[in-house]
Amino acid sequence: MSPLSPQRLDASAADFDRQLRELISWEQVSDSQVEARVRDIIAAVRRDGDAALVALSNQFDRRNVTDFTQLELPQSELQQALEAIPAAQRTALEAAAARIESYHRHQLQQSWSYRESDGTVLGQQITPLDRAGLYVPGGKASYPSSVLMNAIPAKVAGVGELIVTVPAPDNQLSPMVLAAAAIAGVDRVITIGGAQAVAALAYGTQSIAKVDKIVGPGNIYVATAKRMVFGAVGLDMVAGPSEILVICDGQTDPDWIAMDLFSQAEHDEQAQSILISWDSEFLERVLASMQRLLPTLERAEVIAKSINDRGAFILVDSPAQAVAVSNVIAPEHLELSVEQPETWLAEIRHAGAIFMGRHTPEALGDYCAGPNHVLPTSATARFSSPLGVYDFQKRSSLINCSASGAAQLAGIASVLARGESLTAHARSAEMRGESYEQ
Amino acid sequence: MSPLSPQRLDASAADFDRQLRELISWEQVSDSQVEARVRDIIAAVRRDGDAALVALSNQFDRRNVTDFTQLELPQSELQQALEAIPAAQRTALEAAAARIESYHRHQLQQSWSYRESDGTVLGQQITPLDRAGLYVPGGKASYPSSVLMNAIPAKVAGVGELIVTVPAPDNQLSPMVLAAAAIAGVDRVITIGGAQAVAALAYGTQSIAKVDKIVGPGNIYVATAKRMVFGAVGLDMVAGPSEILVICDGQTDPDWIAMDLFSQAEHDEQAQSILISWDSEFLERVLASMQRLLPTLERAEVIAKSINDRGAFILVDSPAQAVAVSNVIAPEHLELSVEQPETWLAEIRHAGAIFMGRHTPEALGDYCAGPNHVLPTSATARFSSPLGVYDFQKRSSLINCSASGAAQLAGIASVLARGESLTAHARSAEMRGESYEQ
Repeated sequence: MSPLSPQRLDASAADFDRQLRELISWEQVSDSQVEARVRDIIAAVRRDGDAALVALSNQFDRRNVTDFTQLELPQSELQQALEAIPAAQRTALEAAAARIESYHRHQLQQSWSYRESDGTVLGQQITPLDRAGLYVPGGKASYPSSVLMNAIPAKVAGVGELIVTVPAPDNQLSPMVLAAAAIAGVDRVITIGGAQAVAALAYGTQSIAKVDKIVGPGNIYVATAKRMVFGAVGLDMVAGPSEILVICDGQTDPDWIAMDLFSQAEHDEQAQSILISWDSEFLERVLASMQRLLPTLERAEVIAKSINDRGAFILVDSPAQAVAVSNVIAPEHLELSVEQPETWLAEIRHAGAIFMGRHTPEALGDYCAGPNHVLPTSATARFSSPLGVYDFQKRSSLINCSASGAAQLAGIASVLARGESLTAHARSAEMRGESYEQ
Repeated sequence: MSPLSPQRLDASAADFDRQLRELISWEQVSDSQVEARVRDIIAAVRRDGDAALVALSNQFDRRNVTDFTQLELPQSELQQALEAIPAAQRTALEAAAARIESYHRHQLQQSWSYRESDGTVLGQQITPLDRAGLYVPGGKASYPSSVLMNAIPAKVAGVGELIVTVPAPDNQLSPMVLAAAAIAGVDRVITIGGAQAVAALAYGTQSIAKVDKIVGPGNIYVATAKRMVFGAVGLDMVAGPSEILVICDGQTDPDWIAMDLFSQAEHDEQAQSILISWDSEFLERVLASMQRLLPTLERAEVIAKSINDRGAFILVDSPAQAVAVSNVIAPEHLELSVEQPETWLAEIRHAGAIFMGRHTPEALGDYCAGPNHVLPTSATARFSSPLGVYDFQKRSSLINCSASGAAQLAGIASVLARGESLTAHARSAEMRGESYEQ
């Protein structure tokens, strides 16, 4: 195996800003061919419903089904999977689910209201979605942890019906995925994927009720389909390749840091692992650990390609410069492998999840620490958040004016409405004012 | 003027469900011509930056500028507008702004964390966006209230820089819009609109820094552009035509209800006003009021077309049926013009804003009650929320494992990671466990 050679950057270099921008630049471009295929798939599902799902699953996932009912898994099959997997796996899934649920309960938003001195009440009512669709990738990236991370926040929010779609290429499904669906209390599992799954969830078919929101990551077809149904249905973000940024003060075991970087790189060849330190010798020690540890790993080839194509070591001159670079990267996963990581938080402006201290590798967060592992990628942490209970709740404003409160507000509204030439608005407000004054 | 004739529906009719679906169906279809033009505009802005904004504003808004600086309004111009408008307008804007700010302060989310018995700390850190772009429609729909409603939540959230874009067709700008921008503390006002404004905010130009999120309603070009930049930048929902659903028990002055319906209809011809009651005589009285009051209004022609094309009166058999129909419509604005509206809330599943009681017309909420007037349209209240402070904040998960906590979690993570064939994840976790056990 050829030696690992992550890109080396020095933050004191004259053109570092440009190098950094190039390092992290990533734009998912649907070429026009992908767009045309996705458009056709969506049109077919809207036109033919269940029959299109049957045909497309046979075509793309090499299934051999004749009827929609064969695409749905009965609850009994989920329970069977739960009973069939090894006890250690079941215990681990249940422990992870309990911790994920416990953390996410802290995210529940409550309705609130307040009364003003004239009796007017203002507030906000929180309600869960009626129905949500959870896209779970299939095949080699079919992860039971994804089922827990997608389904549990929806359940905690109180969503009425949870529909999981997971493709079963060549009829392959992970028993752990089905077991996780059983543990999470998923209502329906449909073994479809790709753009056809997104279309079915967004518009409904004879057998699948249109959902209110679709969450979960997917490949370029899924991402393109999500972009096309935007507006018709709620969406989470379009996910890019996964990334980690590790900031280390040089005092963590270099083997640990090497393995943390590898844990990201093993996801896929486009995954990005970046290490920042102000200790240049430590960077060399980590590289030596990586060379030594690589051959011990099952996915060594994927890791090597990811590290060599997209990995980077960045030398900075200080912790402050490390934070500044991190805020530009806005990483999905930020590992602060430093002493007293809590003192760093106030300066961290953008990150999906922050793993604090030497004993908090990303892998713990991926599975069982409690917070969600569905996180904003590709610098979208600048404006978006981990998947959470709040993604399955929505808000309604409440306004209940007293007669005197309405009269008071009518005066303001009338001036502003007439300033916008909206006379009916003005009259509607004024009528309440006139009534109170009489 | 021809008589008003809103569509009449009876919820007891055999095909009512179908009629209702047709009444509320609305899909914004960008035809391929619009899409091609928007794609060209976005490409031009990405390629030519400021120069493209100059050229496109000259072309579409009939401006006559030679340089980007002429498209930006200096703060002094905002202050001048504030001092130039009539005192009553300034007082009304300031009173509205104070109430909007007061309400939105209740939406501020706070960071939180908790410590587990083994010392592991989990939490969520809240941070504001660095930079937001607020799209304000121009021309005849240029509303100062929109500036307040978009800008104040961002300010309350603590957004670093607020950039308003508002087109100035034929060099026309509303002095009240500029005054509102001054009151709201907007950082920059750029007089551009359409797809070019969306592109400039999403990707940046020489003179406009790329923003993290774009909010605000717009026409089909703006909506199409927003769909195309989805993923590169955060977005609020794509807005459709505005709608109101009034549920009345027959005891409110029919003139009031008529004017409330008109206040929605006067926005534009596609706006939708629906009245539901279980009192059939009351529906006739409201229609009579509408006929009588229509000629008194400036925008009578727009109102008549909106009511006749898209308006509806729905007769139901009970308050419960009224709620059921409302939950299907998922209205942007829901007016509960009934006795004891607070007893209805628990059954209302989807609505952008709920206006409770006879003294709470939508018009008060549009301007000054406090809650936001940017609300989810076209049944998107099923999954989305009013514009709020939460749209300008994002969350980072916090995980800080103690050594013993990490060892405990490592056992779970290891089993699950090996179940997913992710050995580096497993090893990364196990290394922490092994260290603690030694």
